[in-house]
Amino acid sequence: KNNALKSNSSLLSQRSSCSSHGRVCVSPVLVAQQRNNSTSPKIDVEFDQSTGVAVMRMQSPPVNSLSLDFLTEFCIGVEKLEMDKGCRGLIITSNQPKVFSAGLDIMEMYGKSPERCGEFWRAVQEMWLKLYSSNMVTIAAINGSSPAGGCLMSMTCDYRIMADNPRYSIGLNETQLGIVAPFWFKDTMVNTVGHRTTEMALELGLLYNPSEALKIGLVDQLVPEDQVLTTAAQAMTKWLAIPDHARQITKSMMRKPTVDKLTSNREADIQNFVSFITKDSIQKSLRMYLEMLKKRRA
Amino acid sequence: KNNALKSNSSLLSQRSSCSSHGRVCVSPVLVAQQRNNSTSPKIDVEFDQSTGVAVMRMQSPPVNSLSLDFLTEFCIGVEKLEMDKGCRGLIITSNQPKVFSAGLDIMEMYGKSPERCGEFWRAVQEMWLKLYSSNMVTIAAINGSSPAGGCLMSMTCDYRIMADNPRYSIGLNETQLGIVAPFWFKDTMVNTVGHRTTEMALELGLLYNPSEALKIGLVDQLVPEDQVLTTAAQAMTKWLAIPDHARQITKSMMRKPTVDKLTSNREADIQNFVSFITKDSIQKSLRMYLEMLKKRRA
Amino acid sequence: KNNALKSNSSLLSQRSSCSSHGRVCVSPVLVAQQRNNSTSPKIDVEFDQSTGVAVMRMQSPPVNSLSLDFLTEFCIGVEKLEMDKGCRGLIITSNQPKVFSAGLDIMEMYGKSPERCGEFWRAVQEMWLKLYSSNMVTIAAINGSSPAGGCLMSMTCDYRIMADNPRYSIGLNETQLGIVAPFWFKDTMVNTVGHRTTEMALELGLLYNPSEALKIGLVDQLVPEDQVLTTAAQAMTKWLAIPDHARQITKSMMRKPTVDKLTSNREADIQNFVSFITKDSIQKSLRMYLEMLKKRRA
Repeated sequence: KNNALKSNSSLLSQRSSCSSHGRVCVSPVLVAQQRNNSTSPKIDVEFDQSTGVAVMRMQSPPVNSLSLDFLTEFCIGVEKLEMDKGCRGLIITSNQPKVFSAGLDIMEMYGKSPERCGEFWRAVQEMWLKLYSSNMVTIAAINGSSPAGGCLMSMTCDYRIMADNPRYSIGLNETQLGIVAPFWFKDTMVNTVGHRTTEMALELGLLYNPSEALKIGLVDQLVPEDQVLTTAAQAMTKWLAIPDHARQITKSMMRKPTVDKLTSNREADIQNFVSFITKDSIQKSLRMYLEMLKKRRA
Repeated sequence: KNNALKSNSSLLSQRSSCSSHGRVCVSPVLVAQQRNNSTSPKIDVEFDQSTGVAVMRMQSPPVNSLSLDFLTEFCIGVEKLEMDKGCRGLIITSNQPKVFSAGLDIMEMYGKSPERCGEFWRAVQEMWLKLYSSNMVTIAAINGSSPAGGCLMSMTCDYRIMADNPRYSIGLNETQLGIVAPFWFKDTMVNTVGHRTTEMALELGLLYNPSEALKIGLVDQLVPEDQVLTTAAQAMTKWLAIPDHARQITKSMMRKPTVDKLTSNREADIQNFVSFITKDSIQKSLRMYLEMLKKRRA
Repeated sequence: KNNALKSNSSLLSQRSSCSSHGRVCVSPVLVAQQRNNSTSPKIDVEFDQSTGVAVMRMQSPPVNSLSLDFLTEFCIGVEKLEMDKGCRGLIITSNQPKVFSAGLDIMEMYGKSPERCGEFWRAVQEMWLKLYSSNMVTIAAINGSSPAGGCLMSMTCDYRIMADNPRYSIGLNETQLGIVAPFWFKDTMVNTVGHRTTEMALELGLLYNPSEALKIGLVDQLVPEDQVLTTAAQAMTKWLAIPDHARQITKSMMRKPTVDKLTSNREADIQNFVSFITKDSIQKSLRMYLEMLKKRRA
């Protein structure tokens, strides 16, 4: 009954993948990148045709960092599901222990050429655009820590269920590393928890434990860790009871202004990121952070 | 002491009723419609000159559905009070048992000509514009269920008191019927309960019981059913203690951007509604919903 | 170790004090005004170079009213600190018993020429612009009541700690006096407590006691009165642990749209204030309010 679709770049490489109705193109950059990727799949996609629900399991050891390769594979995976009319819902979760996603891969920002940094940032934008404007019902089954880009990914979903483990945390903690969440990370958080909570969370780079995250509305529900995925499936049933067309128009009405802000400023946002991240002072901050991480592990 | 004003279309039919200062015109369409309406009054208006407070009781059996006739009478009633300098406050409540208002009359959207659908939608806009930008203090005394358009009407008021009866519910549940709340319903709800709560409420078409509604801020106060109206009168006294001009300027500052969005897109919004509601697929959804209602009654 | 800087207008009078990077000019009006001010300092500034934190104590008896003289001295004090690269944090508190600041000085609005009213309003704008867009971490140590302009000043800060004394209150209560909080007071409050809470607070001119203020998010933390300042210092340490550049860019991203709304409408806002406040009806309201205050004291 289950029809496991493994991501395969060749499926996409032969055709123009632009689609109408608010969906976003897979950029040539992403497709090209994907071709060069010959490692094992970073994402496992299991699509159940009988329910119309797909489960994406992130499995990029050790912590599902959002590298360019990962993001490319992820976006192609989402796009395939988006274009499959039988797929109405998407549950995103992690196959790695203790972590949902550690967020943007710092190695993609440290010591890289401006061109490569730009490619990377375009892929981050792509992930956000695809998820935040998805016509599918999207549910984040957050079964581990979810800082920075991991938190962003969670916030794009329609519903967030988190494992009630006080060791896990979630938040946009960019400032703690000396970097800055861009305006569309900020917009997504304002849409989720409001202006004041976002202001304090972003300025202090706050990470919240699950009960704090529930209290401010950063996640919608807490359950024991072993029930995250089954609860997500139950919630999905409730969401899919609503007629798709009415739900999709409503979702677009809520999110389109925020999506349009990035789509109409995409190149400037890339330029801005590249010129910021390639600064000597920022590169120095990242080096110090990486060295701190190394020492922690040792 | 009480000076009961019954709505009478002839009072308005002879003059141009456009007024300045942010008030909205009674459109010729509404006045024409009102002339054809020869049934008993759907609204009872009781104005107490000594307090400056009017009480509007909706009494359109069985469930105060917002039909074109009802809306026309309602708007004329509100406009009369608005133009009476002695009237400073308006309490809106229901004379029907168990229901405040069941919302838009589905019979106005099912099997009707595009012209008629457009007339109806203009009347819905008119009700919202009149209430949301009223110079009077408006208090909703919600003594029964208040789905869809009933919830919208409640949200336009300055203050909402609901009967604490767990059988009653309130919310914008349009998606459950396969239809979509337009942007100004959405804007009103965002202004009331914030972006994230609105997103989930609208996508799922959620109806809240009174204590849930209080928790998310959809209503301001719960009281036992037999105290709804007296509590509304007490709250009104508090609101009327504030100098009118300062309160009115402040209210306009808070609401004008939202009102302007509709007034500058009114015809396009009507066009959009008509083309959506007259679609075969939507008409089919409505037919199924109406048949479901019939079966329930039988 | 502590380096107490007393405000001294002559330090600023010789140079053009416009600065780049989002900081706001000290207008010639303010500097001219300051020259004429020969009374004792209304603000005590204590700057600890070892911590990078300055404490501003408002000491304008009896209630730290925001007069033109006070605002001029205050703005010059803030600007000096802003331009001192060693100063990273600012704590604002009161040296007067029971009151943080009573807000705008009504005597500046009653019986004054339009020119003088305009000068005064420009100084109120200046205070808000300087504080709301400050690059320093700003913490309000609210050790007494803080109505109207005092509440505005508090809301401009990054963090608000209030003395947990039920006799103290905070809020924008302008409508209770028959006057109106302008759009940028409103915007600041919406950014702090959201749209609906602001709507009701401003229309009714609500003053909240400390626990109510905490509940709606108007203040962030309550502590016993004798711990307000030490708690502020502890909170400051936490804020200063974040790299300045990342925090400053983030703060600007959150606040710039609100700041830009005033900077691009500054003259119109002054004009609007002057024409409103010099109306006979408003002057009469203020006279009644002042007489009421006199009777209370007698």
